[in-house]
Amino acid sequence: MRWDDRFASRTSFMSRSTVREILKLTAKPEVISFAGGLPAPELFPVERIREAADTVLQERGREVLQYSTSEGMPELRSWIAQSLSHGSFQMSPDNILILSGSQQALDFVGRVLLNERDTVIVENPTYVGMLSAWKPYDLHFSPVATDADGIIMDELGALLQRESAKLLYAIPSFQNPQGTTLSRERRVQLADLLIEHDLPMYEDDPYGELYFTEEKLPSVLEMEVARRGATSIDECNVIYAGTFSKVLIPGLRVGWVAAAFPVIDKMVQVKQAADLHTSTLSQFITYEVLRDSEFFTQHVMNLRKVYRQRRDLMLSSMAQYFPEEVTWTTPAGGLFTMVTLPDHMNAAHVLQEAIKHNVAFVPGADFFIGNTGKNTFRLNYSNSREERIVEGIQRIGAVLKAMMVRG
Amino acid sequence: MRWDDRFASRTSFMSRSTVREILKLTAKPEVISFAGGLPAPELFPVERIREAADTVLQERGREVLQYSTSEGMPELRSWIAQSLSHGSFQMSPDNILILSGSQQALDFVGRVLLNERDTVIVENPTYVGMLSAWKPYDLHFSPVATDADGIIMDELGALLQRESAKLLYAIPSFQNPQGTTLSRERRVQLADLLIEHDLPMYEDDPYGELYFTEEKLPSVLEMEVARRGATSIDECNVIYAGTFSKVLIPGLRVGWVAAAFPVIDKMVQVKQAADLHTSTLSQFITYEVLRDSEFFTQHVMNLRKVYRQRRDLMLSSMAQYFPEEVTWTTPAGGLFTMVTLPDHMNAAHVLQEAIKHNVAFVPGADFFIGNTGKNTFRLNYSNSREERIVEGIQRIGAVLKAMMVRG
Repeated sequence: MRWDDRFASRTSFMSRSTVREILKLTAKPEVISFAGGLPAPELFPVERIREAADTVLQERGREVLQYSTSEGMPELRSWIAQSLSHGSFQMSPDNILILSGSQQALDFVGRVLLNERDTVIVENPTYVGMLSAWKPYDLHFSPVATDADGIIMDELGALLQRESAKLLYAIPSFQNPQGTTLSRERRVQLADLLIEHDLPMYEDDPYGELYFTEEKLPSVLEMEVARRGATSIDECNVIYAGTFSKVLIPGLRVGWVAAAFPVIDKMVQVKQAADLHTSTLSQFITYEVLRDSEFFTQHVMNLRKVYRQRRDLMLSSMAQYFPEEVTWTTPAGGLFTMVTLPDHMNAAHVLQEAIKHNVAFVPGADFFIGNTGKNTFRLNYSNSREERIVEGIQRIGAVLKAMMVRG
Repeated sequence: MRWDDRFASRTSFMSRSTVREILKLTAKPEVISFAGGLPAPELFPVERIREAADTVLQERGREVLQYSTSEGMPELRSWIAQSLSHGSFQMSPDNILILSGSQQALDFVGRVLLNERDTVIVENPTYVGMLSAWKPYDLHFSPVATDADGIIMDELGALLQRESAKLLYAIPSFQNPQGTTLSRERRVQLADLLIEHDLPMYEDDPYGELYFTEEKLPSVLEMEVARRGATSIDECNVIYAGTFSKVLIPGLRVGWVAAAFPVIDKMVQVKQAADLHTSTLSQFITYEVLRDSEFFTQHVMNLRKVYRQRRDLMLSSMAQYFPEEVTWTTPAGGLFTMVTLPDHMNAAHVLQEAIKHNVAFVPGADFFIGNTGKNTFRLNYSNSREERIVEGIQRIGAVLKAMMVRG
């Protein structure tokens, strides 16, 4: 029998990630790639990580290299819990599970909460990694309309009247792929809707610390806490996922999830069965860097500064080099902006041309529920140095202009 | 709504791993624990790992800390492929997927191959981590009888006549929990049965390199290759899983799976959705140590020597201190021996008493399919120094004798 005939039926909902396959095409150094969601490697604190690795291996080597608990390193769980506590709301380390990157939180929440053919409400477009993780459950993804300020609350309210959903999934801050942010006012409204409809929400927040504004917006979790007057996440409907991949180092694969204890307890069981525990060395290195709070604060401030400069340069370059029919979002943080072409254009075709000119991006269609978004693409600005941003945008602009003339 | 009422129905097949929960109870230094499957931390090559971490961070720091491919580090895949090639049989790196420990291979093979209520043939007792990973599919586990030489082939042959199974799962070398090994003759017979019945097999081989005999037995995969005259694993029914946790370092979480390309291809899709990729730093460190082949060979030889000494000491201590009604297996490698008490005794009750005397092990019942094995327990000898092995066995012996007298 062929292997294809042996595969479980859920595999029919699996496919290779387009984004990760495009990343392979763009591995050549001459290609200017705005495709990935990669942090800037030149900003990695390589020396600080080297020191941290050396310190933890010298001081606690045997412990650092041994199997460890599925829940994660106690000091790291406490650090995260502390960072999420404020006023009378105290996050307990027992409500934190350390994961092998925050993609794993998607996988685990799916396993714990989603039955086949459940309804999940999502932004449209939404994160492809969530779609890859949850599509095998043959879900009904119910898209809710968004604008420059994120999910439109009247639309969400109407949708919740119409249908009963298991979960709302959203990236409120600097959304992937759109780069948009849910406004403060809507966060309050969203928290109220979650409470009113007793609806669980997966708040995916990998980019939240990378804000370019004066101050950070409160998370939807914080808003729910405030509206409920909650003192513990055990009272809340938000499951909140974070990661050190964007603010520190992606290659260590350390993420985490905060949730009510029954959810964490079930996810620990999944963790035991899935990969026992997250790399002990990765957790120790991460904690060793985090506890040097002066260094870490300075490091994240620098990321914000550089990424903001790159965003500015990308937006001004698009204004200079893109045809005037093309529009884009103005991200207030994070790694991405999303470009919209005239309706009749197909970003996948633009990519084919662009690759010939050694520049790449991710066509938007895969991020959309339903057969829409073909005229959009996502650009990443965090991973390219200034001169390559200008050069790359110039090349895409030239491709777009040529296609429009031919068009 | 309570979270418990929201959980997916598959969660009813999940539970906390008894083994990992017992490990928490035994974290106190005064407890002599034979419970875990932990390597000896005093044999970890901590200095070599420190050097390797320093080297890779110094030489290729940005690459080591960045996101990387889901398939795994190319050099590491090649090293593994090379180590599995022999004669005209060549393993391609494309048939290797790097994983976050070999537990992840169980998770992924489950997702790729197992439909709800499929039949999987297993040794009895079998590995609890496999049961945790696959129970959520509501499988029919069909146990096949074993003896001191592993699965009894006549029994397997008869079973395959009777029922149609999706997969055979086995640990042929130094089985967990029994410590027994499938004999060379039966490996040939097993390969023939796999071919005759076109039955896929998951060969789980975390301990294979830790043999105490003159030479290593060929894997079932090697036997299948020989019987088929195969030149590629693409022709084979065996999915073969290995890990560096037992021969090098568990805390780095680096395992791997070798299989026919369609299986690997599908597992790569699962990997992308599950956790993107295995820690880049862990992979680089592992490869940096492996490519120092003189060091690595010497290191594994030393593990074999020390673990064999500890096995010898545990077996001779049991002979000295255990009541004569008690029997145990004689492992030819690996980390475990399994003890059988008289039928009327319950190892869980013995553990309760043993813990009071600061010594621990894992009762066997959880490893068994069906309501059997209550009179068995698993002992690990790799993780305890010589004097603690003698002391710990002495304490268990005293508990057993006291309980037998009380009757």
